[in-house]
Amino acid sequence: MGHGGGGVLSAELVEHVFAPAFGGPVLSSLADSAAVTLGGARLAFSTDSYVVRPLFFPGGSIGDLAVNGTVNDLAMSGARAAYLSCGFILEEGVETALVARVAEALGAAARAAGVEVATGDTKVVEAGHGDGIYLNTAGIGLIPDGVDIRPQRAAPGDVVLVSGPIGVHGIAVMSVREGLEFGVGVESDCAALGGLVEAMLAVTPDLHVLRDPTRGGLATALGEIAAAASVGVVVDERNLPVPEPVANACAVLGLDPMYVANEGKLVAFVPRAHADAVLEAMRAHPLGAGATVIGECVTDHPGMVVARTGLGGTRVVDLPLGEQLPRIC
Amino acid sequence: MGHGGGGVLSAELVEHVFAPAFGGPVLSSLADSAAVTLGGARLAFSTDSYVVRPLFFPGGSIGDLAVNGTVNDLAMSGARAAYLSCGFILEEGVETALVARVAEALGAAARAAGVEVATGDTKVVEAGHGDGIYLNTAGIGLIPDGVDIRPQRAAPGDVVLVSGPIGVHGIAVMSVREGLEFGVGVESDCAALGGLVEAMLAVTPDLHVLRDPTRGGLATALGEIAAAASVGVVVDERNLPVPEPVANACAVLGLDPMYVANEGKLVAFVPRAHADAVLEAMRAHPLGAGATVIGECVTDHPGMVVARTGLGGTRVVDLPLGEQLPRIC
Repeated sequence: MGHGGGGVLSAELVEHVFAPAFGGPVLSSLADSAAVTLGGARLAFSTDSYVVRPLFFPGGSIGDLAVNGTVNDLAMSGARAAYLSCGFILEEGVETALVARVAEALGAAARAAGVEVATGDTKVVEAGHGDGIYLNTAGIGLIPDGVDIRPQRAAPGDVVLVSGPIGVHGIAVMSVREGLEFGVGVESDCAALGGLVEAMLAVTPDLHVLRDPTRGGLATALGEIAAAASVGVVVDERNLPVPEPVANACAVLGLDPMYVANEGKLVAFVPRAHADAVLEAMRAHPLGAGATVIGECVTDHPGMVVARTGLGGTRVVDLPLGEQLPRIC
Repeated sequence: MGHGGGGVLSAELVEHVFAPAFGGPVLSSLADSAAVTLGGARLAFSTDSYVVRPLFFPGGSIGDLAVNGTVNDLAMSGARAAYLSCGFILEEGVETALVARVAEALGAAARAAGVEVATGDTKVVEAGHGDGIYLNTAGIGLIPDGVDIRPQRAAPGDVVLVSGPIGVHGIAVMSVREGLEFGVGVESDCAALGGLVEAMLAVTPDLHVLRDPTRGGLATALGEIAAAASVGVVVDERNLPVPEPVANACAVLGLDPMYVANEGKLVAFVPRAHADAVLEAMRAHPLGAGATVIGECVTDHPGMVVARTGLGGTRVVDLPLGEQLPRIC
């Protein structure tokens, strides 16, 4: 299960199995989305499959995730998503009414994100070879001129921002997972971040890195950036925006909120000269109202993320081996 | 199971569930791939999920299908595939060596087709909620200037061509399906048709319709074109290129080869003035060596496909309700 969790085991699968088999310079850049050129247009291109369980959870559904997850991967290249593809893998016996509810959620999320579902496919597998509905979406969008956002561009001196409270999606899904139900009163933050990124790019096209900390949470996003750019990252734990219900649930479950999945948040590495103005633009956007500075990029300990703790000490923030709980998205 | 078979039940799901939920003018065109414009570039965009069983079959694998199926959907818009996305849904416990074999087959097929795997994703589901490996690919490619190939352009007078022997892929997969094994000595025709389409477009950009007759076979492809363009289609059964092993297997299994899936064939509707030259160009290409005229497009019986039988009579060729055998691709 760990190979799908977005952590070290996932990275090993990509590095040792997929990258050598597929080859190609684009895939090996390991960003959330690929930047490709076609017919003179600079495009972002990305895909994700969605196997979340349950299909509906507080604040969203697999249909919302399938739109927002892929739209956000494109946004992390600075691209506004234009078109999505959508593939359904249905398990024999799934109610048509349930398929319709998911399709309606997906359609509504697409309209909210301003993206068009342009092409699709449906397959059906026998009962016992699926789990109701699995979805895949791929998306394409245009990267604006002068924008070059990718993990390798993180540079010492960059200010590290996060767009709002962390850990909400993961805790919301866990709270309704069978065998684990608990009352927590948080809803998933699942949202499309294209508009927020546009507002940030209006301040400066020179954003260095954007990443949506989904599987593996903020810790994994920061660790991958530190490794890709060979820079150090220092985070001040006291500045991490962790909502109280998330902190309480994490305490009970023995989880670290830095490793819990988000679906409507982004982390940004911004040159210090633009950091205040970008933070102001984020806070002026509904999806960035809780934006805050959480750390900085340094020359020390390249490839490593270090957290300053509340007690004045520091600790190393490792990449997780797998996901704390599988099938969170 | 029928809702995934590519026949009437699949069409109903698209028409009554997905199209209303997603909306949008592009999806409703119901072609193999969508034609979209982005940054001034005319792009074909398509997706398919692959759930074939078994994963390896005579002449190919799920990795070959995942490349060639999506490359061919793009080719049916006249586009040469440039970039693919690839999503793996792995079942817990699947051997890493098997994943690697599939990835290698996929990579080799991509290199053969001249397309780059640019972005990917992996999810893992618990044992009993998958079937080893499911794949999804989406693809993008550039549509050449002056090319407008879609089902609605079929016109009375068009000559209907097929690029070679039909029914081979479906019979090859059926012959190794558990519970149904039979010796047949045919290998899947799975292949990427981008080069063949380029050779046809070099004769004239004015090809009216291209379709790869996968799920539901030639009958379904012709029926969908007749319905989309409100034209009649007449096929001469005696001219259908059915290899003897396929004909024999179909006779034993009680199948009509016109409904059996292909993965490396195309059907073309070509204006009569260009038909001879296009046929000649197809025959000069390795993947079109067996190309032949199978019928014509008429004003009679709009929306209906009629076959002239060997006995001098005619019969209506209906859309199938579902697939004869599920999970053929």
